[in-house]
Amino acid sequence: MRMVDLIAKKRDGLPLTKDELRYIVQGYVRGDIPDYQMAALAMAIYYQGMSAEETAQLTLAMVESGEQVDLSDIGQFTVDKHSSGGVGDKTTLIVGPLVAACGLPVAKMSGRGLGHTGGTIDKLSAIPGFRVELSQEDFLRQVKQVGIAVIAQSANLVPADKKLYALRDVTATVDSIPLIASSIMSKKIASGAKGIVLDVKYGSGAFMTSVAKAEELAKTMVAIGQNLNRKTVAVLSNMDQPLGNAVGNSLEVLEAIDTLQGNGPPDLQEVCLELAGWMLLLGQKANSLQEAKNLLTSTLTNGQAWEKFLEFVAAQGGEKQVLIEKDLTLAPIRVEFKASRAGYVHRINARQVGISAMLLGAGRETKESPIDYGAGIYLHVKCGDYVQANQPLATLYTSKEEQIEPSLQLLAEAFVIENHPISSPPLISRVVSTV
Amino acid sequence: MRMVDLIAKKRDGLPLTKDELRYIVQGYVRGDIPDYQMAALAMAIYYQGMSAEETAQLTLAMVESGEQVDLSDIGQFTVDKHSSGGVGDKTTLIVGPLVAACGLPVAKMSGRGLGHTGGTIDKLSAIPGFRVELSQEDFLRQVKQVGIAVIAQSANLVPADKKLYALRDVTATVDSIPLIASSIMSKKIASGAKGIVLDVKYGSGAFMTSVAKAEELAKTMVAIGQNLNRKTVAVLSNMDQPLGNAVGNSLEVLEAIDTLQGNGPPDLQEVCLELAGWMLLLGQKANSLQEAKNLLTSTLTNGQAWEKFLEFVAAQGGEKQVLIEKDLTLAPIRVEFKASRAGYVHRINARQVGISAMLLGAGRETKESPIDYGAGIYLHVKCGDYVQANQPLATLYTSKEEQIEPSLQLLAEAFVIENHPISSPPLISRVVSTV
Repeated sequence: MRMVDLIAKKRDGLPLTKDELRYIVQGYVRGDIPDYQMAALAMAIYYQGMSAEETAQLTLAMVESGEQVDLSDIGQFTVDKHSSGGVGDKTTLIVGPLVAACGLPVAKMSGRGLGHTGGTIDKLSAIPGFRVELSQEDFLRQVKQVGIAVIAQSANLVPADKKLYALRDVTATVDSIPLIASSIMSKKIASGAKGIVLDVKYGSGAFMTSVAKAEELAKTMVAIGQNLNRKTVAVLSNMDQPLGNAVGNSLEVLEAIDTLQGNGPPDLQEVCLELAGWMLLLGQKANSLQEAKNLLTSTLTNGQAWEKFLEFVAAQGGEKQVLIEKDLTLAPIRVEFKASRAGYVHRINARQVGISAMLLGAGRETKESPIDYGAGIYLHVKCGDYVQANQPLATLYTSKEEQIEPSLQLLAEAFVIENHPISSPPLISRVVSTV
Repeated sequence: MRMVDLIAKKRDGLPLTKDELRYIVQGYVRGDIPDYQMAALAMAIYYQGMSAEETAQLTLAMVESGEQVDLSDIGQFTVDKHSSGGVGDKTTLIVGPLVAACGLPVAKMSGRGLGHTGGTIDKLSAIPGFRVELSQEDFLRQVKQVGIAVIAQSANLVPADKKLYALRDVTATVDSIPLIASSIMSKKIASGAKGIVLDVKYGSGAFMTSVAKAEELAKTMVAIGQNLNRKTVAVLSNMDQPLGNAVGNSLEVLEAIDTLQGNGPPDLQEVCLELAGWMLLLGQKANSLQEAKNLLTSTLTNGQAWEKFLEFVAAQGGEKQVLIEKDLTLAPIRVEFKASRAGYVHRINARQVGISAMLLGAGRETKESPIDYGAGIYLHVKCGDYVQANQPLATLYTSKEEQIEPSLQLLAEAFVIENHPISSPPLISRVVSTV
């Protein structure tokens, strides 16, 4: 087998076999196949796409490139959840303890944020004392004892994806549905769960800006799950405006606390109930989505979800008392962003809000950038709301005086206010499922 | 300017500007742009193509990547000739001295053969004593004194092409018309001639198997010439069967001698007259193609072309006497390939004949393979001829006993004999010209 022939095969639109894909991924991780051949193949895949079978086999080859987590010790069907990145997306902090409180074990590995999107590991790291690295043994022990553990992704998980993603990033081959789908699904499958609930975002703040592209990605990932015997559900959710009101790590933890106490923003709660509902259904903790949502709602209102969150945080070394007192440190400089005119809020461009928050210190411009957990943006209004001229629309939190002006500038572009009323677009567009 | 953005631009079908192409080629040659980004770009070009303007600017950027030969010292309009590779193509050995004898100076750089195709430098090297490397000064002095010099391409000529071609070879991006065209034309333009006659082959033994593809390549190259102020003509010639009867270096020199003495095979002479005719026309040594061909024919028959060849060979250290006595050493083992049946020869697959000759020692499987100048194949028949069963169709010359069987096997596949007569296809299909 020669890599140049496999590139030519894909270039000409012919499908690659399981053995060929394994040869490619193994050779690439070992360094036998150089970056330049992989780059040419990635560009050929960009144009020619991949069949469902090819995409599944590519995913499997990537899974097999590194360590695979064995969750069988937990003794229950485990369900993982993945969101495709967004602005203000703190769902894992809520959904994790919520389903754990309903008896479904959560053994989750999460990532860090980059660019305008945040990451669960950064949000958890905003809690004083919280440890995001546990040994494999401690991780499984905590899941068995507490019902939930969330840690940073191991460096040995899907090394093929790390290497390939870095290459795609500099060769203009990121935007390929089969490559995105196999990248996400390989990590979920290597993480060991038998059921997977995907939250595929679309809109200005999402990786997929159009709902059609998001649906294509969702279908591709669900097909991979089907091919590789994972029960998989994908929920398409709107990310045109930020999810909830808080953007920035400590601000988002505070909003997660509100939500776990039953007082969260309606949009955030709706997405959390939808995702958690599908998780319970896959994990057979409920017989219908409605039954699952009823159970989840009562778990939020009766305090069990909140208790589970505290137990989970404490188990990983986090300071419970800080959460109970909502005493997370926020950045010292506070600036109001005010409405330039009266009218109805038609648009709060999530991407621009995300970049604005990043500039304030809440996110990373590059992988090496430090994060200010106390920085971010709190929105006082959402799309559809009526506002008066000069009414505060958002509060900025930062330690970087010099970033206030550029951030305000971005927010001025992000907000569109018009005379006529507008209703919010649906938050959940569709569910794609194998079950 | 960032390479990743330029890849994305081309990926999305947008044209690259002159400055962008120069940035890419210069960065690549310097090593600032890595192979993997260039590979992704090459694959994007494979799919998206390039406009005439882009292809010309890419060519120019490649020309500027290395040394450029200045032929102004010669004091005349110089015309170069390039054949796109074939089997039995010894036209340069004939056309060069022929037009030089008509007063048109020839300052030519040629390449070596690879795979099933031969190269002019190898054929000249089959002449004992012939030096293919001259200093730039000696090269120009000889052109001025003798009217012709043919040397091996300098290593500093278009280094961008060398690096890019090696990359394309292993990334399945060779077969892209704008990349092929800019590769060929950059070398012709850097070699300094103001007029260029291209012999674009099509058919089984050519790089372009279909006449449509060959025509596309021809038009693309002529457009580059037009854009960069070179008078350019492309002749499309058939390479379904080998050109002439001899395949292999010494055998081809002998056939070139016959042709220069007016006794060459008709197909070879026809192609030589066509190419040389256009060269004279571009160099204003004739007012029409017919006038040029008449002049050329008399130059062949009156011995002037042959005399010029001897003078040229002697000037580069070759042994004239060997040529006069046709005393080139041929390989010791001679084997006849015989007709399996009676009938009309419908096909002599040039590619298979070329590979067969390569196996016998006449060509290179890789760039490092040694060459046996005396090895090759001499065809006794051509397409359209009637043959008896067991009649010798070709003689094999080799020093490698073990290669006889595989070579005969390939020839058996190359020859197709049928009951019904067939006329030869036209040798010259079309001429594409800017003049």
